[in-house]
Amino acid sequence: MLKSKSLLGIKDLSIDEINLILESSLGFKDVLGRDIKKVPALRGKTVVNLFFEPSTRTRTSFTLAAKRLSADVVNFSVSSSSVVKGETLQDTALTIQALGADLLVIRHGSSGVPDYLNKILDISVINAGDGANEHPTQALLDLFTILQYKKVISGLSIAIIGDIAHSRVAKSNIYGLTKLGAEVRVICPPTLLPAEIEKLGVKVFHSIEKGLKDVDVVMTLRLQLERQSKGFLPSLKEYFKLYGLTSERLKLTKKDSIVMHPGPMNRGVEIASDVAGGPQSVILDQVTNGIAVRMAVLYLLGGVKQ
Amino acid sequence: MLKSKSLLGIKDLSIDEINLILESSLGFKDVLGRDIKKVPALRGKTVVNLFFEPSTRTRTSFTLAAKRLSADVVNFSVSSSSVVKGETLQDTALTIQALGADLLVIRHGSSGVPDYLNKILDISVINAGDGANEHPTQALLDLFTILQYKKVISGLSIAIIGDIAHSRVAKSNIYGLTKLGAEVRVICPPTLLPAEIEKLGVKVFHSIEKGLKDVDVVMTLRLQLERQSKGFLPSLKEYFKLYGLTSERLKLTKKDSIVMHPGPMNRGVEIASDVAGGPQSVILDQVTNGIAVRMAVLYLLGGVKQ
Amino acid sequence: MLKSKSLLGIKDLSIDEINLILESSLGFKDVLGRDIKKVPALRGKTVVNLFFEPSTRTRTSFTLAAKRLSADVVNFSVSSSSVVKGETLQDTALTIQALGADLLVIRHGSSGVPDYLNKILDISVINAGDGANEHPTQALLDLFTILQYKKVISGLSIAIIGDIAHSRVAKSNIYGLTKLGAEVRVICPPTLLPAEIEKLGVKVFHSIEKGLKDVDVVMTLRLQLERQSKGFLPSLKEYFKLYGLTSERLKLTKKDSIVMHPGPMNRGVEIASDVAGGPQSVILDQVTNGIAVRMAVLYLLGGVKQ
Repeated sequence: MLKSKSLLGIKDLSIDEINLILESSLGFKDVLGRDIKKVPALRGKTVVNLFFEPSTRTRTSFTLAAKRLSADVVNFSVSSSSVVKGETLQDTALTIQALGADLLVIRHGSSGVPDYLNKILDISVINAGDGANEHPTQALLDLFTILQYKKVISGLSIAIIGDIAHSRVAKSNIYGLTKLGAEVRVICPPTLLPAEIEKLGVKVFHSIEKGLKDVDVVMTLRLQLERQSKGFLPSLKEYFKLYGLTSERLKLTKKDSIVMHPGPMNRGVEIASDVAGGPQSVILDQVTNGIAVRMAVLYLLGGVKQ
Repeated sequence: MLKSKSLLGIKDLSIDEINLILESSLGFKDVLGRDIKKVPALRGKTVVNLFFEPSTRTRTSFTLAAKRLSADVVNFSVSSSSVVKGETLQDTALTIQALGADLLVIRHGSSGVPDYLNKILDISVINAGDGANEHPTQALLDLFTILQYKKVISGLSIAIIGDIAHSRVAKSNIYGLTKLGAEVRVICPPTLLPAEIEKLGVKVFHSIEKGLKDVDVVMTLRLQLERQSKGFLPSLKEYFKLYGLTSERLKLTKKDSIVMHPGPMNRGVEIASDVAGGPQSVILDQVTNGIAVRMAVLYLLGGVKQ
Repeated sequence: MLKSKSLLGIKDLSIDEINLILESSLGFKDVLGRDIKKVPALRGKTVVNLFFEPSTRTRTSFTLAAKRLSADVVNFSVSSSSVVKGETLQDTALTIQALGADLLVIRHGSSGVPDYLNKILDISVINAGDGANEHPTQALLDLFTILQYKKVISGLSIAIIGDIAHSRVAKSNIYGLTKLGAEVRVICPPTLLPAEIEKLGVKVFHSIEKGLKDVDVVMTLRLQLERQSKGFLPSLKEYFKLYGLTSERLKLTKKDSIVMHPGPMNRGVEIASDVAGGPQSVILDQVTNGIAVRMAVLYLLGGVKQ
């Protein structure tokens, strides 16, 4: 079982906890291969999705994971909800708990909101992305996918390319990969590099050619197109020219390297279309594995109070 | 069983019917305390939510109540629906019935819409709030919550504070509380008092201090902030000063009085933050009880045709 | 079983396949008459609705059909989804497949999108309306409803009135009705007549009085009100005067003729209110039959891979 009642980030997970989640995910991936992709593990439990940022992909992934565990799932719609009527976040969360939710899946534009909710609620909170802080289930499904292809994480060399400064996906992956013993490189323009990044134990490259040299895994990040208007970026064309993952550049990595992307992709911006759909791409595996990993997380947390 | 096929308001319910719903709710509250919060009572039945006003709280409460009875639940989205394509309300309702709904939960900005739908449909209609008319399940959950703390309603003194004129919550509660033998006081500015309010058997107070004297229960109402712009109100600050429930004012009530609010709250407008979260507040109990009461209503109506 | 893994249109269905769907629908209509309207046929299967055009009626019909087969159903919301974040349609569809969907129900404003998705996906695709091309489940439920009242289609005379040029409902019905041996007449203003319509084997009438003479079935089409602004139409009043189905005009048809409409109706535009609600109207039967027909389609396709 997990020590904490909630999954707030990878930073606070022990290596044992990460491995527990990854092993449980393997069992649930089996379930997904069956004709009837359903187990009764969370029957009678209620999962509430509370998303303050638009998301179909992650929300649907959590929804399907919960349904396959036989839980009831409710989307607490923010736009039509009490939130727009001036209710505080605290009151919204307490209301959801009082409605009988067992697990709350929260996405919010501000870092720290899941931690705050975890403190004021008795039920389990799962961080589905908070500001530029963490997106732990994304990192867990990335670790799971790497394991599927590489068997062990320790000793691998992994390059993350893109807007590191604003990316919770990068942050969570850096925590997870370094804990499990990988060498992590970040490749990005100087304007998109967070301060004190070296403290996280990563190597920084501003040249994509140097950074990709002999890596086992290339993680491309979605470029938030609105960054451009804020002056962090030259044109998108320029960005692709400098940091886009092309098949030419992919040749610099190991022969059996894999290419990842958390989606949704901007083809032709952060990744060339032929690489996205090419033989080294495991991007759709990531999507499938996301269900298994989220089933594991919901199961491990939903069982805490039993 | 209920005499009517539908729940349109408290006004038309007999005392026996109110008590039947409250007793059934007690049974369902038991279910909510179990590890598997689900019974098969409405398996194969379909509940359709048709909400013409934004609501997450009430809609989610009905949705969870229905799911815990094992019913299928569908939200008939008004914004993306035939309604915006110019379909009449009658045709929308007949379509929902033809789609196989067994129970229709309706919220509408105009008083009388649930009654109208009840007349043209064979299936059960549940009023989830119609204009300034009624919100019967809110009143029932309020009665249930009062009973939880006070054992009997008869003989209690209950103050309702706020915008009585526009409040369907107040209206339904006045009907229910007076039927069950409580003394009901309404406290509000003269501009927010409905005409002929005394006919409902309540005492009117314009001074909150006088109105709160020795009451057992204080019901605060949500202030619809848009009222202000329509000239019914001075500033919100002024409103709080005159009619906000503060801990100072709460001392005027009985020592063991309880504080209620239908949510969502405007902290610092109709209720002080320390009162909302204070020891006498039963506001989150109301939310929890709402599920049990709505399960009882769905069950009692959904069983009519069996 | 159906030959194809997907239902893309009526045009490509054989008569045997149409009859298979209609016979299966009859079985599922039985289920809908039971107290527990549910069978376990698709338990553990996942149906994803991907609607790029607003629709409550069709989406809800598919949702209820899927739930009554015990499938899990997820609405992949387009407005809040990756689509608005610049993801390609191909990537959205591949993501939905990778999430584990077994059946994809797609509505899109562009003709041919379901065919395209069928080509790139392994899972079954059901066309819920694509541009002005086809809306096969609507035609199937229309055929089923005609059979309910007329026992055989062959030899019937059927008039379709309205905006034939832009109507996928008309198109799918023309394919289905002519395959099954009916005489099909289309009645419409010259501006709303598609080119080469006679190739589809229908008779064209611009006079509603001549077209309705002695027909067994009258299908009215919804007038997309936005057509008017584009200059295809005179005023709505004028349209009703020229092409509206009135009780007077209905007298020109056979005594036992039936009146159909795919909904949502513009009463007083394409159909008079007394005809819509009159004794010959089978419009609400169409809605009910839609569930049975969609259950049959989901069942026949969902079983393909077993």
